[in-house]
Amino acid sequence: MRRRRPEHPRSAARAGGLIRLRLIRLDESDKSNTPLLLLLSHHQAENPVPYLTNLPPDLLARAAKIRLAAFDVDGTLTDGHLHYSEGGHETKVFHVHDGLGLKRLQANGVQVAFITARISHPVALRAEELDIAHVYQGQSDKRSCLLQLLEALNLSPEQAAFTGDDLPDLPPMHIAGLAVAVANAHPWVAEAAHWQTRLSGGMGAAREVADLILHAQGKADAERERWR
Amino acid sequence: MRRRRPEHPRSAARAGGLIRLRLIRLDESDKSNTPLLLLLSHHQAENPVPYLTNLPPDLLARAAKIRLAAFDVDGTLTDGHLHYSEGGHETKVFHVHDGLGLKRLQANGVQVAFITARISHPVALRAEELDIAHVYQGQSDKRSCLLQLLEALNLSPEQAAFTGDDLPDLPPMHIAGLAVAVANAHPWVAEAAHWQTRLSGGMGAAREVADLILHAQGKADAERERWR
Amino acid sequence: MRRRRPEHPRSAARAGGLIRLRLIRLDESDKSNTPLLLLLSHHQAENPVPYLTNLPPDLLARAAKIRLAAFDVDGTLTDGHLHYSEGGHETKVFHVHDGLGLKRLQANGVQVAFITARISHPVALRAEELDIAHVYQGQSDKRSCLLQLLEALNLSPEQAAFTGDDLPDLPPMHIAGLAVAVANAHPWVAEAAHWQTRLSGGMGAAREVADLILHAQGKADAERERWR
Amino acid sequence: MRRRRPEHPRSAARAGGLIRLRLIRLDESDKSNTPLLLLLSHHQAENPVPYLTNLPPDLLARAAKIRLAAFDVDGTLTDGHLHYSEGGHETKVFHVHDGLGLKRLQANGVQVAFITARISHPVALRAEELDIAHVYQGQSDKRSCLLQLLEALNLSPEQAAFTGDDLPDLPPMHIAGLAVAVANAHPWVAEAAHWQTRLSGGMGAAREVADLILHAQGKADAERERWR
Repeated sequence: MRRRRPEHPRSAARAGGLIRLRLIRLDESDKSNTPLLLLLSHHQAENPVPYLTNLPPDLLARAAKIRLAAFDVDGTLTDGHLHYSEGGHETKVFHVHDGLGLKRLQANGVQVAFITARISHPVALRAEELDIAHVYQGQSDKRSCLLQLLEALNLSPEQAAFTGDDLPDLPPMHIAGLAVAVANAHPWVAEAAHWQTRLSGGMGAAREVADLILHAQGKADAERERWR
Repeated sequence: MRRRRPEHPRSAARAGGLIRLRLIRLDESDKSNTPLLLLLSHHQAENPVPYLTNLPPDLLARAAKIRLAAFDVDGTLTDGHLHYSEGGHETKVFHVHDGLGLKRLQANGVQVAFITARISHPVALRAEELDIAHVYQGQSDKRSCLLQLLEALNLSPEQAAFTGDDLPDLPPMHIAGLAVAVANAHPWVAEAAHWQTRLSGGMGAAREVADLILHAQGKADAERERWR
Repeated sequence: MRRRRPEHPRSAARAGGLIRLRLIRLDESDKSNTPLLLLLSHHQAENPVPYLTNLPPDLLARAAKIRLAAFDVDGTLTDGHLHYSEGGHETKVFHVHDGLGLKRLQANGVQVAFITARISHPVALRAEELDIAHVYQGQSDKRSCLLQLLEALNLSPEQAAFTGDDLPDLPPMHIAGLAVAVANAHPWVAEAAHWQTRLSGGMGAAREVADLILHAQGKADAERERWR
Repeated sequence: MRRRRPEHPRSAARAGGLIRLRLIRLDESDKSNTPLLLLLSHHQAENPVPYLTNLPPDLLARAAKIRLAAFDVDGTLTDGHLHYSEGGHETKVFHVHDGLGLKRLQANGVQVAFITARISHPVALRAEELDIAHVYQGQSDKRSCLLQLLEALNLSPEQAAFTGDDLPDLPPMHIAGLAVAVANAHPWVAEAAHWQTRLSGGMGAAREVADLILHAQGKADAERERWR
């Protein structure tokens, strides 16, 4: 059954992303409802993954070295929402796309860590489900946590990626070989990152990081072959 | 009471609203990556359903044959969010628009199936509410699941549609007569699809699939007449 | 303390809405990072409420007659999401902006009704909080429900507004003096409406309906004065 | 370990991303409603925080005086969603970015208050977590509440900021030295504000207010230095 689908003209479905435009009539006195002409330029690369096209060589070199991918939780693996019920219990909302990325990283020899300042049971549950051994909650100093983990794993900082969204993520990002900011990161965090994801935290940002690392390490083709 | 509403100037309600544009390469044989030209107009097509206008004949032919519409759950019938509370209970969030579409498919003789890798009670509850008999949870091999269901129903793969959002959905999509990716599907999934919905998973994407199938099977007018 | 704030140049903060544009360099070979020039046309009306500007006289005449504003619930007062927990309990998510609008309608002599096909306790809770007496759940025929309510209230259909998002809302919309579709309504519903809100269901769409009715009935100035 | 990251080409991470444009009337004295001209450039300003660039001196002067930053809750610190479960318990959803901003305000000597018309336990829980002493729930008259608080704290109205989203927030905004409306505020509220945030309520709007105040008070550099 594992046959390749024959070529067919599907590129129209995937060319580029969705773009929202508000129609604006240039001449309000014109009642003829004449069409609006929009001229857009767009380059479609060979790689159909838009966030992996035209990456600078320096970024790919950084991603190729990563053996540990560490992630902040709130705002990075979640969308930053903190749910409080009457009883004070906290619900956390993760994304299914991130989960698959983190599993495939591990299957390809890249360890995954969660490093977060808050403490909640949902984070432990999510990590357990994804077989993530390195879960550090209640970390007010994320850089020290990352450095200790690197030492325990006998890895150097340039072998670590750190993905975050807010100021407490800056210290570990400053030492990581690959510092990533999610799309809706604080501007200071975005400025400090080597790469910024296309998607916001909790919406698939971590999946993009996983895809970047696997791509840079030459694993994308084998990954793709798994789903033929 | 079942009178038709007389004509009135309704176009004002739609003119000037947000319009989503999908980039389309005008000449598929052109490998030069030349810029795209997008021509937009205020004019409304005959069919008021934007995602059912200008469909290629091949797509309509595929949709016309469908007797079984199978759907992934997380990221396709939901927006991909996985809710974890302190107790670990999972909440799933479906969309009311999808529900009506799945009910109308069944009322028109198209069977509906849920095929998902995860296991949760909310999926069973939602399926029960929509009278969906074919609910397969915990399926690590969705293609085998789909093939077995097709055999049990005495249907061929070209009579099956499969809608998904991520890599585990690729194998069943590769054999389905109609493979659909939701708007926010992984790029590899979007590339493998015959059609991509306008809406994201959990936001009404499955409704678009239902509308497409009913439209291609000539049922749209009768459906519309029900609500006069 | 009830003084008017003196004039100051705040119009910059409110002129128009947010518009998202993706920057596109027209000539990729141009490395000079020259600015992109965008020419936009925009009319700022006296009324600072963008969804109440330039309304057609026919629409205002319809809204001026309304004594009963009826609303669908799922997809109209909510964003269409159906939350299922492990226990099957349903959570519904309403919007605080809608609540104020429905309260102000009632304070100005316009009765409010909820008419929904589903049955859930959260709907009753929300209606009770807003002092809404007319709550009809489990209504498979929303037009009959609306007609019976109109008869009980001794009102005619042209004194009723109905706001909805999906096909079961079409029958009551077809008889209502003012038929409104939310921004993300099914295209057939949008086509049948006299007006379409700027916001989606559950995001403040019902507030726009309330503001429209109060505006058309000449109550906007007095409403505004309440908050000086 | 506290080294500065060397310069590297980070503009690639931001160039070509989504950029939000706010319509700006170039000539305030022009009442002719002539079209607007928007000139955009790829060039990044010195200040990497887009919502803190090109602020008018009057706004900065207002923000520099603030000793008390008061916030509405629903629609301002949350996205306005009101969650009702079967049992009627209410869940509130706050944003992690706002939390850090409110903590840093307090660390820099600006007191923080929540003033809300509704009453719920989640608000008290959130305030407790952020060490916010001034929490006033069930306030139908928010201006009186703010005035009493100012008197107790021996502050003048011009030393108070009030951030809101809907009409009940107008009275305290009318007396506050700095009145802020969130991005999705009601148009009348946006019109009455000295400043409107770039983000909607519950999505980080309060963080922008905190960043504005710290920036205007000359604390931004020291704040940034904390995360080296």
